[in-house]
Order: sequence, then C-alpha cells, then structure tokens
Amino acid sequence: MLYLIGLGLGDAKDITVKGLEVVRRCSRVYLEAYTSVLTVGKEALEEFYGRNLILADREEVEQKADHILKDADVSDVAFLVVGDPFGATTHSDLILRATKLGIPYHVIHNASIMSAVGCCGLQLYKFGETVSIVFWTDTWRPESFFDRVKKNRQNGMHTLCLLDIKVKEQSLENLIKGRKIYEPPRYMTVNQAAQQLLEVVQNQRARGEEPVSEDTLCVGLARVGAEDQKVAAGTLQQMCSVDLGGPLHSLIITGGSLHPLETEMLSLFPVPERQSGSQSAERLCT
Amino acid sequence: MLYLIGLGLGDAKDITVKGLEVVRRCSRVYLEAYTSVLTVGKEALEEFYGRNLILADREEVEQKADHILKDADVSDVAFLVVGDPFGATTHSDLILRATKLGIPYHVIHNASIMSAVGCCGLQLYKFGETVSIVFWTDTWRPESFFDRVKKNRQNGMHTLCLLDIKVKEQSLENLIKGRKIYEPPRYMTVNQAAQQLLEVVQNQRARGEEPVSEDTLCVGLARVGAEDQKVAAGTLQQMCSVDLGGPLHSLIITGGSLHPLETEMLSLFPVPERQSGSQSAERLCT
Repeated sequence: MLYLIGLGLGDAKDITVKGLEVVRRCSRVYLEAYTSVLTVGKEALEEFYGRNLILADREEVEQKADHILKDADVSDVAFLVVGDPFGATTHSDLILRATKLGIPYHVIHNASIMSAVGCCGLQLYKFGETVSIVFWTDTWRPESFFDRVKKNRQNGMHTLCLLDIKVKEQSLENLIKGRKIYEPPRYMTVNQAAQQLLEVVQNQRARGEEPVSEDTLCVGLARVGAEDQKVAAGTLQQMCSVDLGGPLHSLIITGGSLHPLETEMLSLFPVPERQSGSQSAERLCT
Repeated sequence: MLYLIGLGLGDAKDITVKGLEVVRRCSRVYLEAYTSVLTVGKEALEEFYGRNLILADREEVEQKADHILKDADVSDVAFLVVGDPFGATTHSDLILRATKLGIPYHVIHNASIMSAVGCCGLQLYKFGETVSIVFWTDTWRPESFFDRVKKNRQNGMHTLCLLDIKVKEQSLENLIKGRKIYEPPRYMTVNQAAQQLLEVVQNQRARGEEPVSEDTLCVGLARVGAEDQKVAAGTLQQMCSVDLGGPLHSLIITGGSLHPLETEMLSLFPVPERQSGSQSAERLCT
C-alpha cells in the first residue's frame, strides 16, 4: 500500500493520530521536500515520529517514482507531504503511477493552506481561482497570472496567491557545467510578492486598466498554523514593507466588497506600526 | 484560552496529535454538532479522547456563546469542529466574541472538505466560488446559487457544492406550538442535489440558457477522508442515481475543459454499473 499522508502546516505534532500510526509501521517513509516546508526540519520530524525519513526532491518524485513505489505492492510505503497531499498537483502523478503498477493507495488528509487561510476571517467560499507568484529574474517577469486576479476581482472574489519556493536549485553556470552544487533555498516573502505586484499594477495602468491599485486591501500571512503565525491586513502598498518574519508566506488580494463579519475579523489583524529598522524594506518598494 | 480545534473528516483518529493533547488538558470540551458530521458519533470520540464532550447545537453557539466562553480567560476551553474550524463562517463570530471579552484564542487546523476534494484529481486552484445547495420544499425552491455555478463555468472553473444538513430541526407544527420535538437528522445525497440541479437546468433552458446540461461532467463524493470514501465521476444525469452510501456527500460541477492529468485521475472513479436494486432511484430522477 502507498500511503500519502498530509503533515499539516505547523510542526511535527500537526500530523494526525492516524497518520502517525501509519508512519510508524511503514517499511519506508519519504518526505516530499520541495513544494512546502514546516517550521521544523527533517531531524525534528524523525525524532518525533521515531523513524528515519528519506528526503524526496522534485527529481526523485517526478523522474524516479519507481524507487518510491518499489515493493509497495507487498509492503507499506509512506509519502509525507506538508499540508494536504493534494495541495500540489504533482502528487496525482504518483497515484496514477501506483495505480498502473497495481499498487493500492490510501490518502490521509490534513490542513492545507488552501483552507487554513480562512483564519484571517475572509470567507472561504468567496475565494476564486488560486494563483502562484514566481520569483522574477532580470529577463523573465511573467504577468499572466494577473489575468486570474483580475477575473476574480471582477467577480468580487478573493485571490489566494501562493508564493514561490526555490529549493535545491542550481545556478545557470552550475547547471551548464553539470555540477551538482545547489543554491541556498529561497522563499518569497509577502514584501517581494507585493513589490512585483505593484510593478504589474503600473504596467496595467499604462494600458488604461486598474483592477488593482496601491490601495487595494490585501492580507499577508506567515507560518499559518504554526505557534508564531502572523497575519496582517492592509493595502498592497503596506504589504511591501510589513515585517511578517520567516517563511512560508502567502498573500491574499481581497475581492473588493467585504461581508461585515469579514471586515470585523480583518480588523483583528492591523499592520503593525513600522519600526525604524523596517524602513529600508519600504525604500526598496518605491 | 479558547482553542478552536479541527477534527478532520474521517473518524476519531483524524484529530492531530497537537489537537488531542489540548483536548485532554482543557477544562471543558464542546463539540459543534450542526455544520458537519464524522463517520463516528460523540461516544466514539469521547472514548478515544478520554473526555466528556458537551454537544453545542446552533442555538448554543449563536445565541448562548457566553456559556462556551465562561471562564475561558482563566482556564482552557476547547471547541471542536468537524473539518477545519474555518470551513463554516459561523465560527468567526465565536472568535470575535472571545476577543471582545479579552479571551485569547488559538486555532488548530485540520483537513477541510474545501481542500480534501482534491482527492478526486481535479486541481484545487481551478475551483471557483463554493456554493451550498439546500433542501427544497414545496414552497421554497431557491435557484440563486446557480448564478455562481454559471459564472464559474464561464471562467472554466469547477464548483464545489456543499450539500444541506438538517440537524435538530423542528417541524412547522412543533415550532408553532413551541414543542421541543426534533425531526430525525437529514443529510442531502448527491442524488437529491443532482435532481434539484436538473430542475434548475430545465428552468434555465426554458429561458434560453444552458450553462449546464444533463451531460455536464460532475463528481460525486461521499465520506471524503473516511476509510469507506466513495468517489464517482459521471454526467449530471448519472449523479441522479449513483449509489454512494451514507453521509456526508458533496458534489462537484466541473468547469468544462480539463487538464489531461485531471481527466486521467477522474478515470480512476467511474460510475459503477447499475444494479437492479438502484433502478428505483433512477426512476425518481426522470
């Protein structure tokens, strides 16, 4: 049996009781380590679960899935995913491969950022299509995701923006030279996402469109589900400088008109007064 | 401290390890018992948690929240919700009341139907606004939810339909006479939802519109996250008669064009061949 087990969003203890029981009895346990992260690392999970974990990077999962599925028809193999196993579409592929090999599978669900964002008080059923915002480079600055933000806003729906994660990436030079040297991991902050968004807003304005502006109400979220979770509701401009601490971050662009209950809930999460130390971030933004 | 703790979607063991630890040390533990249900009842939860649970119906939560919050400033009180605490908007209200009373709160997230529906293989980020389908009566047959289905379809987005639950409802007669006699609980099936939808489709057609038809691809889901979960992908017409077993049910109306990976995943869940016993359900539909 292949078990796909969600780990939830905080730390080692956010696994379900059922999930933990399965982890402890499987013959091999993989940890998917490229679509999301917890606030604790592999070692803390291993200690709490009492099991060794095998890190599975993108290459392993997408190109060497046979390693993961080996003998899963006669023994139990667990594949652990931060959040819920279906937050990232890539895991459907693993299920399809297992099914083709005649290996049964079982899913143990857990909290996903897709639903846990409800903690800010915006109503979940009023979210439209989710978008991903990737790190721009000097030469690659995609804006196509913004069409979906626009469509959601036109329909009065909130947009959850999932922010880019770069784990185990090679520099272009190392890639070309075939050197397996990896860059340090990078996690996009709400500040970076808001700064990129403001550039898109300016490009839209130059074309005579303004579905989103500097003053559009947004919500920045960090480490949702963890003990030190932070939420701040403010304008897109404010999101450029708000200090939410370490990863993971997510950003919501609200859909325009809010239900009174949504407004009241958001008022619990004001953007903190800026301290002198955060002014440099503000300057970056303008 | 007020703890809002998600119980996930299956049975007693779908609580997180963190959630269980909190339940075991709180001075009072409430179980919200009107927006969703697990596959096991209160007694099974009490046995596994080792705690007595106080059932909180809608009246208790919405009108007598002060009972729940009593002394939560000096002791720990847990409020358990099937799924994730923010699946139902009603719980924002409890948080706002607690905050006004100066009571701190903490949320322990868990799987929600809003994200666990990803198990059918449809990509979560392609879901538009969620709708609720309520039981029609002879005199009350609301169709306004269908505007949102239409808008989602126009934008190529899937619609998750949450199906009605009637728990602790009084008949009109008992309500008028002030008798606290309650009807047996009712949970809308995929069959009932599809039959109501087909009536809306026919009304739309009479107005010259046809955003959804008998042949629109839908997905019926039952007891998502439980051991005996069932999923079936087929036409809206087929959803009228597919046998998915006991509650809870949900229905997805797909957004039209599918990603090849979505199509391949849905092919894992064909509508089972009808047995003679289920033909009566089919007749109901036509």
